[in-house]
Amino acid sequence: MSLTALFRQRLDEAAAATETTLESLLAPAALPGEIVRPQRLLEAMRYASLGGGKRLRPFLAIETARLFDVSGAGPQRAAAALEMVHCYSLVHDDLPAMDDDDLRRGRPTAHKAFDEATAILAGDGLLTYAFDVLSDPATHAEAATRADLVLGLARAAGLGGMVGGQALDLEAEGRTAPHTPDFVMTMQAMKTGALLLYGVEAGARLGGADAAQRAALVRYGRALGACFQVADDILDHEGDEAALGKRAGKDAGRNKATLVAALGLEAARKRRDALAQEAIAALAEGGFGAKADILAEAARFTAARKS
Amino acid sequence: MSLTALFRQRLDEAAAATETTLESLLAPAALPGEIVRPQRLLEAMRYASLGGGKRLRPFLAIETARLFDVSGAGPQRAAAALEMVHCYSLVHDDLPAMDDDDLRRGRPTAHKAFDEATAILAGDGLLTYAFDVLSDPATHAEAATRADLVLGLARAAGLGGMVGGQALDLEAEGRTAPHTPDFVMTMQAMKTGALLLYGVEAGARLGGADAAQRAALVRYGRALGACFQVADDILDHEGDEAALGKRAGKDAGRNKATLVAALGLEAARKRRDALAQEAIAALAEGGFGAKADILAEAARFTAARKS
Repeated sequence: MSLTALFRQRLDEAAAATETTLESLLAPAALPGEIVRPQRLLEAMRYASLGGGKRLRPFLAIETARLFDVSGAGPQRAAAALEMVHCYSLVHDDLPAMDDDDLRRGRPTAHKAFDEATAILAGDGLLTYAFDVLSDPATHAEAATRADLVLGLARAAGLGGMVGGQALDLEAEGRTAPHTPDFVMTMQAMKTGALLLYGVEAGARLGGADAAQRAALVRYGRALGACFQVADDILDHEGDEAALGKRAGKDAGRNKATLVAALGLEAARKRRDALAQEAIAALAEGGFGAKADILAEAARFTAARKS
Repeated sequence: MSLTALFRQRLDEAAAATETTLESLLAPAALPGEIVRPQRLLEAMRYASLGGGKRLRPFLAIETARLFDVSGAGPQRAAAALEMVHCYSLVHDDLPAMDDDDLRRGRPTAHKAFDEATAILAGDGLLTYAFDVLSDPATHAEAATRADLVLGLARAAGLGGMVGGQALDLEAEGRTAPHTPDFVMTMQAMKTGALLLYGVEAGARLGGADAAQRAALVRYGRALGACFQVADDILDHEGDEAALGKRAGKDAGRNKATLVAALGLEAARKRRDALAQEAIAALAEGGFGAKADILAEAARFTAARKS
């Protein structure tokens, strides 16, 4: 099997595993310490997290853990927790007060399928649940690893990470001056990069990576995250509404902070490809050998993706 | 000093300690793993969490930890984390799509003082930060305790706890039939009770309570939480706009699920007082002796409060 085909297979496997894990976590029965799971809220949380997306973040967590031959449910649970945070962020970003999107992955957004209050609460519920999943002994036998997974996700997703990045992005939209490449890259490293990097870090933590391995994986994750976002900016610029399942071209109309706007299309493409190479080089320096081929292919895929 | 005066002093001390801890946690400098803390978002998070409220939840965490002579920053950090969750829930509950409140504690609500998008993100940021604080080694030397604190908060605040309770409350408002006492009590145990109970449980966890002590404290926390919410329903019913700092009487107008509506005013008052006695009895059974006098006084205060 070619590396590309193997990568696709692993991506599909990670997506299927994430779906199964999310399905079982979002079952109707209350866990110890919960009182009841209200049906409509649970439905909205399921709607927002099941059946969609490439599941790139879960793939990164699972595939990085695989470098260290981690067994058990840990990688899949960490992957599901990470995906819950990603999905909550989409639900809140789509709200009328934020990006005001009606469609997401070709389906009505959560506040359209349910209502705005339920969408806000479903997002809150998914975010909260992510920390439940990570801190539960089922994720890792060592409490230190679980606490570490929680702390890393909170930093990646919070004020100085994803939530902060979304705040910067919204502020930027209100300005009329063009955005500097530095500003755009910082905002994107927070808004998108931090969570992709966390996927890699979660796998490294579950695997007990040593300091050198961890540093290499952080370089990989950071480059991959940046690459992903430039590729996204380019795709949005070239925008094809049908392929993306969301209104394309809207970023340019709104003075959104994108690297295509800040650098120009050609420079953005070069940057995207250089970042993919940087990610691949980091894996080689980490000394993972052929075991990291799939993660390297993920970097190529990220740069080349068409949707 | 009378017990009432001593209780007031301890409540004030807990509020001051919470303020100091939140101030230092919400400083402008980014922590390791954060990229930058965007100024406006940070301001909104500070606005939503500093300078307000009785800080009853922090008091419960700090005062319960005191039963076990817990030293160090743990109780104050857990108290601040808990208060962040409480404050985030107020910010989201006040949003136009939810309760649509313009005033909170006599000040404009966060979405009025800032804007709706910033309020949503500030709530998300506070919720996320709570788990950061609990999982940080500064909160407790033992990782098992930190992971336990995280898991407990996630269960109390999530789908089967506070967020679920808010969802039930909103659903209830849309119905025309009167609400049964059972429904109202379940909804309130989730929406308000779970977080108050968690304050007590966090203190017990930090203090290394044994099983019997823990069970007694859970009974105390559960009764106190229920007492608090009935008292709130009664206060709202008797409503005095100036004293509460929010529009009073609105719950009745909207077919909100309250115990006064479900039971009648007199029965609600009896229930409130019985719950305070139940809380006090639980402390006696826990064998904490005079050390628990302040927590017992907190139950009396909760039943007797006028705002």
